[in-house]
Amino acid sequence: MADLYLAEARQLDAADPLAHFRDEFVIADPSVIYLDGNSLGRLPRATRARVRAVVDEWGTDLIDGWGRWLGVGRAAGDLVAEVVGARPGEVTLSDSTSVNLYKLAVAALDARPGRDVIVTDDGNFSSDRYVLDGVAAARGLKVRQVPTDLDDGVRLSEVERALDDQVALVCLSHVAYRSGAVADLAGVTAAARRCGALTLWDLCHSAGAVPIGLSAAGADLAVGCTYKYLNGGPGSPAFLYVRRDLQPELTQPIWGWFGQTDQFAMGRDYEPVRAIERFLVGTPPVLSGCAALEGARLSATAGIDDVAAKARSLTGYALRLIDDWLTPLGLRVASPRPARRRGAHVTLHHPAGWSICQAAKLAGVIPDYRRPRRIRFGFAPLYTRHVDVHTALARVRDLVTAGRHLDFPNEPEGLT
Amino acid sequence: MADLYLAEARQLDAADPLAHFRDEFVIADPSVIYLDGNSLGRLPRATRARVRAVVDEWGTDLIDGWGRWLGVGRAAGDLVAEVVGARPGEVTLSDSTSVNLYKLAVAALDARPGRDVIVTDDGNFSSDRYVLDGVAAARGLKVRQVPTDLDDGVRLSEVERALDDQVALVCLSHVAYRSGAVADLAGVTAAARRCGALTLWDLCHSAGAVPIGLSAAGADLAVGCTYKYLNGGPGSPAFLYVRRDLQPELTQPIWGWFGQTDQFAMGRDYEPVRAIERFLVGTPPVLSGCAALEGARLSATAGIDDVAAKARSLTGYALRLIDDWLTPLGLRVASPRPARRRGAHVTLHHPAGWSICQAAKLAGVIPDYRRPRRIRFGFAPLYTRHVDVHTALARVRDLVTAGRHLDFPNEPEGLT
Repeated sequence: MADLYLAEARQLDAADPLAHFRDEFVIADPSVIYLDGNSLGRLPRATRARVRAVVDEWGTDLIDGWGRWLGVGRAAGDLVAEVVGARPGEVTLSDSTSVNLYKLAVAALDARPGRDVIVTDDGNFSSDRYVLDGVAAARGLKVRQVPTDLDDGVRLSEVERALDDQVALVCLSHVAYRSGAVADLAGVTAAARRCGALTLWDLCHSAGAVPIGLSAAGADLAVGCTYKYLNGGPGSPAFLYVRRDLQPELTQPIWGWFGQTDQFAMGRDYEPVRAIERFLVGTPPVLSGCAALEGARLSATAGIDDVAAKARSLTGYALRLIDDWLTPLGLRVASPRPARRRGAHVTLHHPAGWSICQAAKLAGVIPDYRRPRRIRFGFAPLYTRHVDVHTALARVRDLVTAGRHLDFPNEPEGLT
Repeated sequence: MADLYLAEARQLDAADPLAHFRDEFVIADPSVIYLDGNSLGRLPRATRARVRAVVDEWGTDLIDGWGRWLGVGRAAGDLVAEVVGARPGEVTLSDSTSVNLYKLAVAALDARPGRDVIVTDDGNFSSDRYVLDGVAAARGLKVRQVPTDLDDGVRLSEVERALDDQVALVCLSHVAYRSGAVADLAGVTAAARRCGALTLWDLCHSAGAVPIGLSAAGADLAVGCTYKYLNGGPGSPAFLYVRRDLQPELTQPIWGWFGQTDQFAMGRDYEPVRAIERFLVGTPPVLSGCAALEGARLSATAGIDDVAAKARSLTGYALRLIDDWLTPLGLRVASPRPARRRGAHVTLHHPAGWSICQAAKLAGVIPDYRRPRRIRFGFAPLYTRHVDVHTALARVRDLVTAGRHLDFPNEPEGLT
């Protein structure tokens, strides 16, 4: 059977319209199959050149370099906007995802006075939950947690059940970090609007992986990172999205000079610009920002429709191999199966998940691990081939079959 | 006279124990005298190499690179701590200066419930004022503004006059951005403590320029940027300082996973670490952070005593030339004259300041301009020589004497 699967992989790769994008990335060791692009994307070749150029600009142009650098956040934002289905001027690079989540959450709550509930889900990413808990604690609000299926994400019906006229803000991840389950962005947005709440999406695991369609859904607010599928590099600046007509209505809580009208006039009173830069605060990190720009350019150039189709093809192919090879070994699929519900990573549950993850790395396959007992295989669409999926899953099959993971201690029970 | 001044400059440079640090920087065009290191420091040679190395680490090590990168903020923080006179573990890189100011201001206010006044000065940097205004507006507090002399900064006696038992927080710049005037950090800190308030210092224009002595003064809180005298590069991450014994007492408002105990356990509740990382939020920009690390290393290696002595020597020498050459031309010194009250930049007022600034750039001298009608000459101590001061001020003297600045329009009156 393995040979038929391999032949299929080669056929799929031969027909892949994005195949040449792999050449745009540095692949330092082709014998290692990197399936953690959902945590940190690969280094684009253009980024290596661009970062060197920007460092040289700093050395040569000194303060005058800012004439160019001030535009990086907006330029990258417009590329990200293409990827997330928003319009030019609705997205900018800014701060970290958590800081952006805080700014937009507070801005939204200020715009819904008298309402005292924030809705999120109990499986949401830790930092998102902490930020919301902190905001709720400071303002005396309640956080209402929608129950999540760890393997299947948040259901629209559960969100609707949590909505009433006390809800100011709904804050969810579009793609769940554990399972990769895709939430119903348009459905939740519409339901929240019907009850008068604003919606704030975390797009960290969806930008550059799945279609998002913020404008089509009329989404209010969103944040996300650029270092996963957008390949912006370690800790590259996050992005934020605010729907154009909402921009002048909202004021974020950290009043900094990068949001100020006529910034360098340093006027007495804070008068934020009526544009997406209204949500900026302080001086942005230029080297990391230029890396984010180059990374986002690749996804925008490839086009999100082709990118998402490739991701679905990779995860669909992976699921067939997993069903055949890994499920019989006790690795259970802990992700949704329908194509439209899948992100670009597939999660497998196994009681010895931690050990298998360590053994996989030794075998030249890099997944990552998330509690409880889950191995995530990320199939970043711009540089992962179907043959890579084949190689990686065959290695995992072989190591588990041989019991090589038993050489590694498992994660202690108490920590799961 | 010019020759005598030049001879003096050469003598001072020959005796300068930090002279060799100039070789650590990229000087792309030695004919241009760069006196804007107080806005953006020069590129260190080591940084160029380090950034290339980190980009390559990303390409090669991928997710495993985080094993090293997670330590960058603390390592850079410990170097900055040496420069600002704090202890290891009291400083870390984090976010931007304005975001840090917000976090620490709110943390301080939460620690002083029942008090409703923030004290700052009316000449403080715009972004600091905006941040404090935003915090005050959100919490229903008052901002009490100490009057500032634009040329001489904030006086301790004026701060003391503003203090009473309603003051929760005093927030000032240590070195004023316009005049370079040094505030009495120890005196203000002690006076604020006597009335039960916490003090938060902005060190943007002092870190790497003047002695600060946070520990000696028992300072509570501080923030600052790394891209001026610390030569961290455009928008390199800011730093924050919290005195060790205060760390467990304070909780900042943006509850993110980088402040969380056992961060990757992603536990249910936010339990911030009992260390300086408690004040972190989201994923830090690694490329820009490594640049900040290399920049800070140079100032720490040089030693703040020698660095500050060099800055005083440069500004003292500059003042002698200004008195002799420029004051007769109508350029008035708008900075304090005593050595202990001077930062590393000297500001000159002239009605045609904007025009002179533009003409100076054409003449190969790069100062910067700040309203109203002020030209700032920054003498970054690690790479500026006394002969550079001589060359630059002679060029300014000659262009004003010849009236070459009259070729440039002045800033419109309404904008000053």
